[in-house]
Amino acid sequence: MRTDEFDDFEKYINFLFEKIIADLPTGIEIIGFGIGAPNANYFTGFIEEAPNLKWKGKVNLVKSLNHKSNKPVFITNDANAGAIGEKKFGIAKELENFIFITLGTGLGSGFYCNGKLLYGYTGFAGELGHTIIFKDGRQCNCGRKGCLETYVSATGITRTVKEFLKSGNRSILENFDDRSLTSKKVYEAALEGDDVAKKTFEFTADVLALALANITAVFSPQAIFLYGGVTNAGNLIFEPVRKKFNDYLLNVFKNTVKILPSGLPQDDASILGAAALCLEEINKFNL
Amino acid sequence: MRTDEFDDFEKYINFLFEKIIADLPTGIEIIGFGIGAPNANYFTGFIEEAPNLKWKGKVNLVKSLNHKSNKPVFITNDANAGAIGEKKFGIAKELENFIFITLGTGLGSGFYCNGKLLYGYTGFAGELGHTIIFKDGRQCNCGRKGCLETYVSATGITRTVKEFLKSGNRSILENFDDRSLTSKKVYEAALEGDDVAKKTFEFTADVLALALANITAVFSPQAIFLYGGVTNAGNLIFEPVRKKFNDYLLNVFKNTVKILPSGLPQDDASILGAAALCLEEINKFNL
Repeated sequence: MRTDEFDDFEKYINFLFEKIIADLPTGIEIIGFGIGAPNANYFTGFIEEAPNLKWKGKVNLVKSLNHKSNKPVFITNDANAGAIGEKKFGIAKELENFIFITLGTGLGSGFYCNGKLLYGYTGFAGELGHTIIFKDGRQCNCGRKGCLETYVSATGITRTVKEFLKSGNRSILENFDDRSLTSKKVYEAALEGDDVAKKTFEFTADVLALALANITAVFSPQAIFLYGGVTNAGNLIFEPVRKKFNDYLLNVFKNTVKILPSGLPQDDASILGAAALCLEEINKFNL
Repeated sequence: MRTDEFDDFEKYINFLFEKIIADLPTGIEIIGFGIGAPNANYFTGFIEEAPNLKWKGKVNLVKSLNHKSNKPVFITNDANAGAIGEKKFGIAKELENFIFITLGTGLGSGFYCNGKLLYGYTGFAGELGHTIIFKDGRQCNCGRKGCLETYVSATGITRTVKEFLKSGNRSILENFDDRSLTSKKVYEAALEGDDVAKKTFEFTADVLALALANITAVFSPQAIFLYGGVTNAGNLIFEPVRKKFNDYLLNVFKNTVKILPSGLPQDDASILGAAALCLEEINKFNL
């Protein structure tokens, strides 16, 4: 069941205990809870002003769940959870410095530096999606303009299509309305040779490559993992991103960074990551 | 004596021993060497292709100096050395997450994450000056276009003045040629109320603020320290940077980051930093 179907988070917790936990097969012992959630803060345990959840303000999911279960509970941002999952269960096991990026409705990111997830001073580090890539660019849900996620997320891709269509380019994508036009449809149209769809992927790859070259100049990661719906386009996105990334890259970083599809199964990154977070913390604190 | 007066680095090392070390007052014991140098790599000990030094290619200063002195030798990028200095001798002693930025001929930066200097996979992390802030923007010495340092370094400031003058703006700065036009002259002209000079500082502050807001979204530092010639402009640069930084900042980071002048004495950051690096490494490895 989708979290956004619960208008109150206490109802969600009740549902979790009465329907999910109560129905677990016998023999399964719960040792703790790991949560990957949008706008979640590892330090405070709060989910703060998550735009896609109905729970407004600050919600202390950790405290409530801990109180009800009497088990240790850990929370982090969903993209951070993905990065932890990539480190524990994916293909970043041996890497000390890497970036995990989810390209879905928005753009989420988690950063490993010196073998540790980066939380920064506030716990909110890793908001690559909200770096301004074009000053005075596209309007973002965050209230500002030109954020990376308005260009290279699934939503960004459909916005690009609409801009090309407005400029008078003909395309089979004209037949879709706002609801039915998805990045998947754009991908399918590109495979059929549609020019607007192909130009959209080129543009998306160019913007993403620029952003990845910039963040490489600062972090010098060994690998950048891309995950989420947009990456289903496979080489239609990976090939131009890698080529343009290399063009944009400062000389000293050339051939030092791999851009790879995540090693986690599609749809399960946050779940595996939340589990990995829980295991890691329980081990760290000998709980 | 300036390093760039030595066309061969072995001559520089000889000079160091014959003129500097030989002349040290008695009673001073050398326990090791710390070096802050452009394009220096902490991992490899090499200075690689430093554009402002005459020593071309890869120069292994650490090995040569270690061989000649029989003492431990440590090297890092000069901006990293500044960051280490700020942590050890400046006002970042208690901070785990901060950024140190030098605004001189170029823009250098050193990043502390989780209490450790960030080197990344290659050892070259922290090249904020070579993030592309405006795609297809100003030509940079690195061969690419639009790098942050082409806008907000001392050199960037004089380039901005020239652009304003080319657009036909009248200014007392017209009286300077390429050699005599410095960021200091621009500062003095701004104090005298010169419009081009004032607009130049506004533009510089705007671009720097945007870059700092972007890097805050990713790193979430507790403080950003500005150092170097450009910061001599004091509140002419700090006030507009702080104001615009706050405007550009993602909501969740507002009021979490201080933008401060470095606590290190002007001109001595790299020296103090190199000393701090040496002390730190000697302690770490019990040398």
